Amino acid sequence: MTAEIITIGDELLIGQIVDTNSAWIGKQLSLTGIKVHQISSISDDEKHILQALAEAEQRVDLVLITGGLGPTKDDITKKTLCKYFNTRLIIHEDILEKIKIFFDRRGFKMSEINVQQAALPENCTIIPNPVGTASGMWFEKNNTVFVSMPGIPHEMKRIMTDGVLPKLKKEFDLPVIIHRTVLTYGIIESELSDQLEDFEKNLPEGMKLAYLPSLERLRLRLSITGKNREKLEKLLDEQVSELKKYLGNKVFGFGDSSLQEAIGILLKKTGQTVATAESCTGGNIAHLITGVPGSSEYFKGSVVAYDNRIKQNVLNVNEQSLIKYGAVSKEVVEQMALGVQKLMKTDFAIATSGIAGPGGGTDEKPVGTTWIAVATPNGEVHAKKYVFGTQRQQNIRRASAVALNNLRKSLIVIE
Amino acid sequence: MTAEIITIGDELLIGQIVDTNSAWIGKQLSLTGIKVHQISSISDDEKHILQALAEAEQRVDLVLITGGLGPTKDDITKKTLCKYFNTRLIIHEDILEKIKIFFDRRGFKMSEINVQQAALPENCTIIPNPVGTASGMWFEKNNTVFVSMPGIPHEMKRIMTDGVLPKLKKEFDLPVIIHRTVLTYGIIESELSDQLEDFEKNLPEGMKLAYLPSLERLRLRLSITGKNREKLEKLLDEQVSELKKYLGNKVFGFGDSSLQEAIGILLKKTGQTVATAESCTGGNIAHLITGVPGSSEYFKGSVVAYDNRIKQNVLNVNEQSLIKYGAVSKEVVEQMALGVQKLMKTDFAIATSGIAGPGGGTDEKPVGTTWIAVATPNGEVHAKKYVFGTQRQQNIRRASAVALNNLRKSLIVIE
Repeated sequence: MTAEIITIGDELLIGQIVDTNSAWIGKQLSLTGIKVHQISSISDDEKHILQALAEAEQRVDLVLITGGLGPTKDDITKKTLCKYFNTRLIIHEDILEKIKIFFDRRGFKMSEINVQQAALPENCTIIPNPVGTASGMWFEKNNTVFVSMPGIPHEMKRIMTDGVLPKLKKEFDLPVIIHRTVLTYGIIESELSDQLEDFEKNLPEGMKLAYLPSLERLRLRLSITGKNREKLEKLLDEQVSELKKYLGNKVFGFGDSSLQEAIGILLKKTGQTVATAESCTGGNIAHLITGVPGSSEYFKGSVVAYDNRIKQNVLNVNEQSLIKYGAVSKEVVEQMALGVQKLMKTDFAIATSGIAGPGGGTDEKPVGTTWIAVATPNGEVHAKKYVFGTQRQQNIRRASAVALNNLRKSLIVIE
Repeated sequence: MTAEIITIGDELLIGQIVDTNSAWIGKQLSLTGIKVHQISSISDDEKHILQALAEAEQRVDLVLITGGLGPTKDDITKKTLCKYFNTRLIIHEDILEKIKIFFDRRGFKMSEINVQQAALPENCTIIPNPVGTASGMWFEKNNTVFVSMPGIPHEMKRIMTDGVLPKLKKEFDLPVIIHRTVLTYGIIESELSDQLEDFEKNLPEGMKLAYLPSLERLRLRLSITGKNREKLEKLLDEQVSELKKYLGNKVFGFGDSSLQEAIGILLKKTGQTVATAESCTGGNIAHLITGVPGSSEYFKGSVVAYDNRIKQNVLNVNEQSLIKYGAVSKEVVEQMALGVQKLMKTDFAIATSGIAGPGGGTDEKPVGTTWIAVATPNGEVHAKKYVFGTQRQQNIRRASAVALNNLRKSLIVIE
């Protein structure tokens, strides 16, 4: 079964709203074994809607539509659907009753335009909306199913979960599609693709590998379609194990996780703690770590030492080292890591010192030059130099990710 | 001029990635006076791409395409474009040189598949990518312009901003659309809309006011379309002055600025400095402040005191206060602000202490409860309590924005 998603609304086209509905629907359909062929965002315009419906009808078995079901004048989806399916709006008394209860419960007064929310096409199957006043509508035409839903994300999600997906599973014989995502860091896409040439060649029939890079992780997604879920899962599990063999400790997690979650899991396991001493990352590593719920269990704190005197006075960095080697140096970043480890009495510590840019670069130390150190419980400290790019925000993000990954590697060694 | 946006990638259709590129592009085009007709997300499939291009060519003057330009096998956009535009890939030596420099700078080894990033269609205009290896490509066919860009958001944005938008403005006679954005903080949309009722009624013919709320700022955008730029700018300037009269110090800036930039400007002006002591915000305020280039001039550093002992030992918070009032209290947050002000010898200091959630709430102090303090150069400290929501990430963002805004207000008073 193939599907298309059509989201209706001028606000999507002018970029006032990011369309998150499509991604959510796409994921649900994929998990249900329905292949999404296309997603289209179109304007609140009758001609445009009619054309998009007709095109989709030619291409797929299922069309899911969101948006344009509100009570105001610019919402024209319902009228347009009547035209397309050659029907008319009638008041559905059972729905009207539900809308009345909906308003009563909230203590709101119901007005005439709210009554119109119960005016729905005569020849569709109503899919109830338990959390709002705009109902879902299920139509069938020339062997294609069309479902129209409101654009408000939490209403659309309830209609999908409670009504549309169960009905699809009941009425159609759907194949099984499964995905596994392996999260890696510390290797770039092109290098990885070289390394995985044999792996890719030997993938079982019908299994696909996709590379999804970002600054914070490189995701590898394996996908397969078939009928027997158990068999497919086994096939995928085997290939995930195989991937792990190729990639070793470059794999930091699975599914939708992050480096900071990975180090959280490792630190919790051993009951150990960490602190950060940040110069060029300016608190971003602490921010990432503390974004994880429960991080107070293993994260004690951070000293953001932007000014060199803070490096000296709070982190106990030697003044002579600052003068001799400069703030962006092996010596200083190591002392920063050891300093915060001692100050905060933690097992591990991360430190960063670099030139985030756009200013501050020299021939010897261009913008992007960054030293990153990890101090470990045995009193050792390891520092490494990196040269990132010229973009301040990206340098901060890259340095933070590398620092978290270096900590992760230290934690694995200990483990 | 009308446009369509086509985003290519299976990961969009299965909902693994939310397509934020389209909204960003849609916004830029709207601001440039180009009407976006449709956004389509399609699969990494030759037939599908060819069909989408042909359909779009029929409908609009400009087609912007993102995705599928990576060096790996699943990226087929480039080959498909050659087919559509009846051309072939050739190695562009100047681009190859740039890619070599790109790799050298980062200390990465360049492999054969990276060389292939310089293989580009013979008959297109190359739009350089200053931050990556996949170039933009500009084609023209039957009076429609097609531009293909990589899907990685920061690369696409640079290609658009530096190359595509300037070229569009140069080569086409676009209508003049001007916008002025007034940035406010500390007042909610509905309240503001009440306050501005008269202002909106008296707007000149054809001028529009849009409210664009987010957690960090409420933007008010005034827009007008016409032919005479000078005249339109004068009209807008007058209304911006009028708005400032209505809003007073709730206005913190104009255009695309932020609270952290606003405080940077104020601090630079007086030559004063600031430090932060962060508990619930976990370093996010420092991260925001240091995101601004040149912030080292006025930002000395931060102590992220996640653990109470760090509050005591590093920030000198009284143990008795922690026991008697708890970490999330007026007393503790005030001592944190004064502590970091003294430790880092700054003129101003911000401190936060709250329950970001999801855990840690009590009946008396529910999740979202947050104390925020600002210490000023005269030795005073002002703390205020806020109760935000239940979402961890949002609570961190809200607390950071309020803290920055409170500092801003203190700076204005001083000013």
